[in-house]
Amino acid sequence: MIAEILAVGTELLLGDIANTNAQFLSKTLAALGISVYGHTAVGDNPTRLTAAMNHAFNKADLVIACGGLGPTLDDITKDIAAAYFGVEMVMDEDSWKAIQKRFKGRKLPENAKRNAVVPKGSKILPNNHGSAPGVCFEAGGKTLILLPGPPSELEPMFIKYAVPFLRQKTDKAFVSRTLKIVGLGESQVETILQDLIEAQTNPTIAPYAKQTEVALRITASGKDEAAANILIDPVAAEIYNRLSQHIYGEDDEIMAKIILNSLEASQKTLAIAESCTGGLLASAFVDIPGSSATLLEGAVTYSNDAKTARLGVPKDLLNTHGAVSPQVAAAMAEGIARTSSADIGISTTGVAGPGGGTPEKPVGLVYIGLHFNSVNNNNGKPTKTKELRLIGDRNEIRARAVVAALDMLRTSL
Amino acid sequence: MIAEILAVGTELLLGDIANTNAQFLSKTLAALGISVYGHTAVGDNPTRLTAAMNHAFNKADLVIACGGLGPTLDDITKDIAAAYFGVEMVMDEDSWKAIQKRFKGRKLPENAKRNAVVPKGSKILPNNHGSAPGVCFEAGGKTLILLPGPPSELEPMFIKYAVPFLRQKTDKAFVSRTLKIVGLGESQVETILQDLIEAQTNPTIAPYAKQTEVALRITASGKDEAAANILIDPVAAEIYNRLSQHIYGEDDEIMAKIILNSLEASQKTLAIAESCTGGLLASAFVDIPGSSATLLEGAVTYSNDAKTARLGVPKDLLNTHGAVSPQVAAAMAEGIARTSSADIGISTTGVAGPGGGTPEKPVGLVYIGLHFNSVNNNNGKPTKTKELRLIGDRNEIRARAVVAALDMLRTSL
Repeated sequence: MIAEILAVGTELLLGDIANTNAQFLSKTLAALGISVYGHTAVGDNPTRLTAAMNHAFNKADLVIACGGLGPTLDDITKDIAAAYFGVEMVMDEDSWKAIQKRFKGRKLPENAKRNAVVPKGSKILPNNHGSAPGVCFEAGGKTLILLPGPPSELEPMFIKYAVPFLRQKTDKAFVSRTLKIVGLGESQVETILQDLIEAQTNPTIAPYAKQTEVALRITASGKDEAAANILIDPVAAEIYNRLSQHIYGEDDEIMAKIILNSLEASQKTLAIAESCTGGLLASAFVDIPGSSATLLEGAVTYSNDAKTARLGVPKDLLNTHGAVSPQVAAAMAEGIARTSSADIGISTTGVAGPGGGTPEKPVGLVYIGLHFNSVNNNNGKPTKTKELRLIGDRNEIRARAVVAALDMLRTSL
Repeated sequence: MIAEILAVGTELLLGDIANTNAQFLSKTLAALGISVYGHTAVGDNPTRLTAAMNHAFNKADLVIACGGLGPTLDDITKDIAAAYFGVEMVMDEDSWKAIQKRFKGRKLPENAKRNAVVPKGSKILPNNHGSAPGVCFEAGGKTLILLPGPPSELEPMFIKYAVPFLRQKTDKAFVSRTLKIVGLGESQVETILQDLIEAQTNPTIAPYAKQTEVALRITASGKDEAAANILIDPVAAEIYNRLSQHIYGEDDEIMAKIILNSLEASQKTLAIAESCTGGLLASAFVDIPGSSATLLEGAVTYSNDAKTARLGVPKDLLNTHGAVSPQVAAAMAEGIARTSSADIGISTTGVAGPGGGTPEKPVGLVYIGLHFNSVNNNNGKPTKTKELRLIGDRNEIRARAVVAALDMLRTSL
């Protein structure tokens, strides 16, 4: 089954809102194994909406239109749909009763009745969060689903009333598994997996570049979820084999949470000293509810004075090697662990730019320091450092340094 | 001029991301007086992308396509565009040099060269935030602009290189001025300005709610920029009159930068102690290049032990009032100023949720502490506190607490 999503509303074309309904519907349809071939957005204009509906049904057998179901004059989606299928508009008595019940004790808006008028032969999708019911209309092998525009009405209506109906129409189950990759770019991932990606049919493999990581989605179809998973398993295993440590998690897993879970399990505590990342690394952990048991303390020691006063980084070290050096990164990690009595200290120091770069220490040069108070944890060395040469603007460099620091900690545990 | 926005990327059709590029472009085009008649999203499929490009140019004389400019095999937008206009693909030497410069000192990915291959006759839109340049191609009264998919690359490229080009094509000048408002919600702003908004024709006034602030855009058209600005000035003055202190800046101004400039001018230094915001407040300042002269130090003291050991918050105070209390917020602000020898200390402590709330101290309760070492700065009181009751999930509460803290500092200077 091929679907097309048609969003109706001038507010989309003016950029007042993003088309988050298309995203929600696409995600939900993908999980049902229904392929979405396109999204369209048009304004509240009869000619252009009619053309868009025609165009959508030329490409798809399922069209989901959202918006323009309300009672005002510029809400025309139901009328255009009735004209498309050549049926008249009729009052749906159950919907009218539901609207009256909803307004019980309050004054009914003058045009409220228009909410309950639908194309003749429609199946009604009740609206439990608003006045305008949804509509499902089938004719000549074409299915049209009309949904209200507000996500707070559209989403529960679609899940409760449209999904069970659509599930009956699909004979396959689709399953996706996303492997989350760090430390490799999109083109590097593609080069390593090129033969697998090119040979793909079922499952398919698709890499997506995010700001600081790559998501690799494996999607398979089968007669049921278990059958689809059986197809995914060997492909995922081969990808794990090739990318190994670079895969830090799957689906909705978050790296800071994986690290916190691991630290909690081994009852280790953490403290963070940041220079160029300036609080972002600590924030990645504080993002996770319950992190306070593990993250004892963070320090943003952006100036040299603060590095010395707060972390005990020797002035000599700063003078000899400069603040952006492996020696200072190590001393910062050791200093924050010592002064906060944490088991592990991690630090960042670097040149985030746009100014401050030199030929020896260019913008993008960042050092991470990682100190363990027990040498057993760290191949016998209490402190190690890592040099990064990052690209991007100031905030990209800072975001990438945070992920590199998280990844260094993750792979050291 | 009629425009159509064509987004390319299977990740849109799978619902992995929302089409925020269409929103950004629509908003920006509206400000230029260019009407957007539709948005379309298609996958990385040659047949369907070709059909979508044909369809878009049937409706519009300007098509802006975003996504699919990268170097990998499924990045096909430039090839489809070249085929549509019947021109060959050629290497753009300047773009290739820019890519080599970007990767200087690091290994160039194998397929990096593909980024610099464009339809013959293209005007290049340089990419200052990524590898894939944008492209502008004109033929037979049709204009096609190709932009990279990541918003961090698309937005600055469009503003810097495409907007000046499009501005020449429109016979009127459209000027927008955005007033940035903090501490009032969208509907409060709308209520205060209702008569102005309703009376609007030229200029128009439109409020946009962001996560932590409201942007109010005033747009006027005139025969040139000066004429448009003359229409904007009295409206802006009336809005300043009504919203006064709530307007913290205009256009691209950033609150942390306004604060840093003010502190620098008065040669004051700042230190930050964070509990629930966990590094985000410090990061808002470190975001700004050159902040190290003013921001002496940040401390993420998430645990009670860290508040006592690091900031000298008395244990008694924590036991008597709890960590989330005005007393502790004040002691944190005083403690960080004292231990870092800063002129000003600011602190946050609160319940970000989802757990940890009680009937007395519900999720969303946050205290800000602000300490000045010179009483002259603060109406004679060295330390003041502010209670916030914020709504949203954990990360919304944290983001809103950061903005409230920044605003408290801004309005105290």
